[in-house]
Amino acid sequence: MQFHHHGYVSGDPRIQPAAGTGIDRPEQLPDEVDVLIVGSGPAGMLAAAQLAQFPDITTRIVERRGGRLEIGQADGIQARSVETFQAFGFAERIIAEAYRITEMAFWRPDTENPHNIVRGGRAVDDATGISEFPHLIVNQARVLDYFAEVAAHAPTRTTPDYGWEFRALDVADGGDHPVTVTLVRSAGPDAGTERTVRAKYVVGCDGARSSVRASIGCTMAGDKANHAWGVMDVLARTDFPDIRTKCAIQSHDGGSILLIPREGGHLFRMYVDLGVVPDDDNGAVRNTPMEQIIAKANQILHPYTLDVRNIAWHSVYEVGHRLTDRFDDVVPEQLGSRTPRVFITGDACHTHSAKAGQGMNVSMQDGFNIAWKLGHVLEGRSPASLLATYSAERQVVAKNLIDFDKTWSTMMAKKPEEFDDPAELEDFYVRTAEFPAGFMTEYAPSLITGAATHQGLATGFPVGKRFKSAMVSRVCDTNPMHLGHHATADGRWRIYVFADRSPAGAASPVADFAQWLSTAPDSPLAATPEGLDADAWFDVKVIYQQPHEDIDINAVPADFKPFVGPFELTDYEKVYGTVPGDDIFEVRGLSRDGVVVVVRPDQYVANILPLTATAELAEFFARILNTRQAAR
Amino acid sequence: MQFHHHGYVSGDPRIQPAAGTGIDRPEQLPDEVDVLIVGSGPAGMLAAAQLAQFPDITTRIVERRGGRLEIGQADGIQARSVETFQAFGFAERIIAEAYRITEMAFWRPDTENPHNIVRGGRAVDDATGISEFPHLIVNQARVLDYFAEVAAHAPTRTTPDYGWEFRALDVADGGDHPVTVTLVRSAGPDAGTERTVRAKYVVGCDGARSSVRASIGCTMAGDKANHAWGVMDVLARTDFPDIRTKCAIQSHDGGSILLIPREGGHLFRMYVDLGVVPDDDNGAVRNTPMEQIIAKANQILHPYTLDVRNIAWHSVYEVGHRLTDRFDDVVPEQLGSRTPRVFITGDACHTHSAKAGQGMNVSMQDGFNIAWKLGHVLEGRSPASLLATYSAERQVVAKNLIDFDKTWSTMMAKKPEEFDDPAELEDFYVRTAEFPAGFMTEYAPSLITGAATHQGLATGFPVGKRFKSAMVSRVCDTNPMHLGHHATADGRWRIYVFADRSPAGAASPVADFAQWLSTAPDSPLAATPEGLDADAWFDVKVIYQQPHEDIDINAVPADFKPFVGPFELTDYEKVYGTVPGDDIFEVRGLSRDGVVVVVRPDQYVANILPLTATAELAEFFARILNTRQAAR
Repeated sequence: MQFHHHGYVSGDPRIQPAAGTGIDRPEQLPDEVDVLIVGSGPAGMLAAAQLAQFPDITTRIVERRGGRLEIGQADGIQARSVETFQAFGFAERIIAEAYRITEMAFWRPDTENPHNIVRGGRAVDDATGISEFPHLIVNQARVLDYFAEVAAHAPTRTTPDYGWEFRALDVADGGDHPVTVTLVRSAGPDAGTERTVRAKYVVGCDGARSSVRASIGCTMAGDKANHAWGVMDVLARTDFPDIRTKCAIQSHDGGSILLIPREGGHLFRMYVDLGVVPDDDNGAVRNTPMEQIIAKANQILHPYTLDVRNIAWHSVYEVGHRLTDRFDDVVPEQLGSRTPRVFITGDACHTHSAKAGQGMNVSMQDGFNIAWKLGHVLEGRSPASLLATYSAERQVVAKNLIDFDKTWSTMMAKKPEEFDDPAELEDFYVRTAEFPAGFMTEYAPSLITGAATHQGLATGFPVGKRFKSAMVSRVCDTNPMHLGHHATADGRWRIYVFADRSPAGAASPVADFAQWLSTAPDSPLAATPEGLDADAWFDVKVIYQQPHEDIDINAVPADFKPFVGPFELTDYEKVYGTVPGDDIFEVRGLSRDGVVVVVRPDQYVANILPLTATAELAEFFARILNTRQAAR
Repeated sequence: MQFHHHGYVSGDPRIQPAAGTGIDRPEQLPDEVDVLIVGSGPAGMLAAAQLAQFPDITTRIVERRGGRLEIGQADGIQARSVETFQAFGFAERIIAEAYRITEMAFWRPDTENPHNIVRGGRAVDDATGISEFPHLIVNQARVLDYFAEVAAHAPTRTTPDYGWEFRALDVADGGDHPVTVTLVRSAGPDAGTERTVRAKYVVGCDGARSSVRASIGCTMAGDKANHAWGVMDVLARTDFPDIRTKCAIQSHDGGSILLIPREGGHLFRMYVDLGVVPDDDNGAVRNTPMEQIIAKANQILHPYTLDVRNIAWHSVYEVGHRLTDRFDDVVPEQLGSRTPRVFITGDACHTHSAKAGQGMNVSMQDGFNIAWKLGHVLEGRSPASLLATYSAERQVVAKNLIDFDKTWSTMMAKKPEEFDDPAELEDFYVRTAEFPAGFMTEYAPSLITGAATHQGLATGFPVGKRFKSAMVSRVCDTNPMHLGHHATADGRWRIYVFADRSPAGAASPVADFAQWLSTAPDSPLAATPEGLDADAWFDVKVIYQQPHEDIDINAVPADFKPFVGPFELTDYEKVYGTVPGDDIFEVRGLSRDGVVVVVRPDQYVANILPLTATAELAEFFARILNTRQAAR
C-alpha cells in the first residue's frame, strides 16, 4: 500500500482524498451523469467501486431497495473473486470472516444397506494450486458491503442512490448524454414520483428479470425449468458428521442434497432436491412448505437426523439455463457502426442453477470488464471502440458457464444407480476444478488481446487468461511478495518487464527497452498526459533474474524508478529480484532472454512480447490509446 | 470467527451486539466507574479494548487531548505485538498497511576510504522463525485507531473520554469505589472545570511524566541522560541505496544513524546521532534546528546525499534509562496485606531510548497483563490477590528491557574504531533477535504460573513464555490453521488437550480427562456460572495425533463439542488433528502420551500437566478461581 507521498496521512490510508467529482458530490441524483448503473448487486457494486477510482467521471448507482441488502442469495466465492477482492483491498478481511472450503465430501447410499448414506470419498479443493487465494463461502450482502466501502472511500466518494427503480430508457442518435432513463421513486415519502436522468452510458445490473435488458430488446433463450430445489440457510443440531464440510449427498431413494457450510461456524445452506416438476405444475412447487423441505432433508440424510432450530432464509426454485443473445444495445447489423450505450451484466444476461456457486463470481467479472473500459473511454484514454469488446468477451464466458452448470446440476440431480461409476460425480468435480475456481476464462484475440505468437517466452502466463501471480523479492526493502498482488484496481495497464540475464546496470536488452519505453514517441507511456505522474496510466515493473541482494538499485535504469507526487519522490517499489528456490522465471516458464508481459486493468494477460519487440508493443497500444501527447 | 449462533448477523460480524453496560452507555463520564484508565496511548487503549469485552464492567478511559492522536512517536511493532493484534482481530489489516522488516543492513566506514560509508553486512530479521507474524513499522496513531475500533465494537461500546486531564487521586481504606480521582477539563468550552470520579481501580497509562505515578509515590531511578539524538519522519530524495531498508549506519567521524523505513513506501524515520551532551547543556541540545540535523545526516551518509522535501515530524531527545520501583500503589511493607487499587503501565513505569523499537510493544503487554486480571476480579471469577501478580510480573520485564536497550543504544553510539570487530553490532543484533521480537518474557512461578515440573512433556511450550502457535487441521471443516490464532482476546483461559495415541472414541487417558473436566466438582469448568455457555470461562480444545480424515468427529467425547447459544448448537471448532509433514506433536516436542497445556488469557503458558494430573490441575485453578458452582 503506497501513501504519504503527497504528505503525511494520519488516518486510514484506505480512505483516499476526495478529488474531482468527489468534492462536493451532490447528495441527490443529478440530472446528468456519465454512467448510470442500475442495480447494486455484485456486478453493479464492483462496477461502481471501479469507476469510483476515476475522479473526473460522474457515476451513480440506483437501487430499487430502500437501503443496504440485508441477506442475499449468493454465497460462493471463487478464488478468482478473492483475487479480485485483493485488487480492491479487502481480501484479507473477507477471508478472516468467511467459511473456507478445503475439501469436499461425497456421500452415497451404503451398498450393504442402501437406505443409509455413507461417505464415499473426499476431494481436496484446488489440489493443484490453481490460485494462492482460498475458495470461500460468505453471504453476498457482505461482499456488497465491502465494495460499498471501497466506492465510498474512493476519490469520487460514490455511494448508492437507494429507492430508485428503473422504468425505461431511450437512446438518442447523438448528443452528449444520449441515454434518457426514466426512474420511479420506490421508497420514502415521495414513492411513485417519476423523473429522468440523462447518461452517457447505462449499465444494467438489475438481475434475472432485468428491465434494462427488456428496454434494449435482448432476448433470453434456454431450456425450460424442470427440476425443483429447496434451499435453506439454517442453524440446526445434527449428528451428520460432515455438517461443516461441503458435501454432495446422494441417497438411494430420496434424492440429493448439496450442503454448503457458511461463515461463522454454525450456519449452513442446503440445496434439497425436490424432484422433477410436472409440466402442469405452474409454479406450485414454489409453495412447498419449509417443513416439507426439512422432512425431505432428513429422509436423504438417513441414518442421520437434522433438527432445524432457526431459519435465516429459504426459497424454492426451478433450475433454468438461459442466456441473452448480446450484452449491449448494438444489434448484429449495427456491429462496428455505432458505439454501445447500454450494457447488461450478471443475472440480467445469464441465469442458471446456484449450485455450482458461480453466479456472483461471473457477475463480478462482468462488472470488472465493463467498468475500466468505460473509465478509459470517458477519460479520453481510449477510443469508444473499446466498448464493443465487452459483449464480445463476456458472452462467451456466460455460454461456457451455462454449459458447465448444466452438466453439474444434471449430475447432481441424477440417481445413484444412473451413474456408470459411483465416483463419477467426484471425478468430474476434481477434473474440472479450474472452471468453478474462475480461471478458465480465456479471452480471444481482439483489440485488447494480442495473438499468442510469443507465448513460448512465458508459458505460465497464457495470453487471454488472468495473470497468475508468483513470488518475487522487492529489492528496495528485501520483502518477498506476490508480484500480482500489487495490481490494485486502479484502472492502470501493467507492463511487467522480465529482464534478460544481464545484471542491473549492464548494457542489455532490458536497458534498451527501458530507454525506449520512457523516451520513444511511439511508446505507450508517451500517451500519459503532462502533469500526471509518469506511472499514472501505465504501471511498469521490472523483475531481474538475480536475487535481491545481487541487484544494485542505483544501477537500475531510472525509467523503472519514476518520480511521483508533489515532492517528486522516487518510487522504489517497481524493481524486483527472484526468490531463491521459488524463482518466477522457473515457476512461470519465462524466457531467460527476457520477456514483456502486458496485463489489462482487470488482470488479464493482454500480450507477450520479446524485449526487442518495441514496434509490436507500440502497434498494440496504438489501437487502444486515443491520443499521443508527444512531450512528457 | 464465530457468529450467527444467536441468529443471523447481517452486517459486520466484528461488531458485537451491545450488552450490559454497553446498552445505554452514558455519553458523559459517570461519577462512578469500575475502572478508570488514564491516558489513551498503546497501554491504555489495549487495556480499554480488553476490558470492553466484559459486558458488566464499566470502564472509562480519559485522555487529556481533545481527540484522536494525529501523529505519534512510536512506530516499531514486534512480532509479539502483531500476535496480540491477531487476538484483537486486526492483524491482517495492520499488516497490509505497515512497513515490513525482513532484513537489516549494517553500513560502516569504507576501510579504503573512511570518509565514505559502505554496506558491511545484512542480517535477516527473524532468521530462525521465532514467530509466524511479521516485524512491522507503522505509526502509533494507527495502532490506537485499531484498538479504538475494537473497543467501540465490543459489547460495552467503549470510547475514550477526550479532554480530561488527570490531576490527583486519593485511595480510601474501604468502600465500593475507594479511589477518588480529580480530573480537570482540558478541552472544550468548559476547559479548566474540575470534577471527581470514583473508581474501584485506576490504571495510569499517562506516559513518562505520569501524574498517576506521582500520586502513588513511585520513584523513577536510572542513569542520567548524556547522549542526544535527532529524530525525524521525512519524505526525501536520496541516492542512498538502502533508504527503504532498516539500517544501522556508522560513519568514520560524523556519528551514526538508525534508519527506519516507514509505512506507505516513501516516508522514513532517521535517528541521527547528535553526540555526547555536556553536563552544563541544560537541555540546549533539544533546540537543535532541523537544518542542523539534516546537515549532520548528510555528513554521516557521505558519499550519498539526502534532499529532504517534507517533514512530517521531528524531535530531539536525550537517552535516559529509568525504571519505577513498583507498578502499583502497594508499598513493600503492605505487600500481601492489601489489594492494589492503582496501577501504572508503559512509559509511566519505564523510559528508555526509542531505538530498539520496544517501548510501544512492552507498554501494550503491560496493558494486556493488567486488563484481563481486572476483568476477572471485577466479574468475581478470581480473588483480588490476582492483581498483585501484575507488578511482580511486569517489573521484571521492564528491567530486562532497560538492560537490553542500554546495551543496544550504547553500541549504536560507539565509534567504529571502538568495536573489537566491525561485525560486532550485526552479531549482537542477530544473537539477541528473540528479545526485540518480544518473546523473551518468561514469567516466574506464581499464583498463575505453574512450576516447570512437567516441561518435558511439551518442550516447545515453555511455562511462563507466550504460547507459540503451530499448525493443526480442524476436523469439522478440514481447514489447516494455526491453533494459537483462535485465542482471541476474550478474557478466557485456554486448556489445550493434546491427546494420547488412541484414536477418538477409544477408552483412553484423553477420554478420561474429558470426562473429569466436564463432570468433576473440582474441575475448573465447574466454576462457570449456570446460564452461561459451557465454554464461557474456559476454552477447551482437543488435538488428536491423527490427521483430520482419520478422526470420526461423532466419536470425539461430547465434552469437546459444547452446546452454545440460545439454539444450543454444537460447537465443532474445538477438535483438531495433525497436519502431515507439519505435525504439532513433533514441531512443539509434545509427549505421545498426551499433555495438557494451560494458557492464560494474555497468551502465556500457565501450566503443563500430564493427562492424568487432574488433581494438580484442580489445585492450580483452586487458587485462581473464586467460587465453585457445583451444579452446571
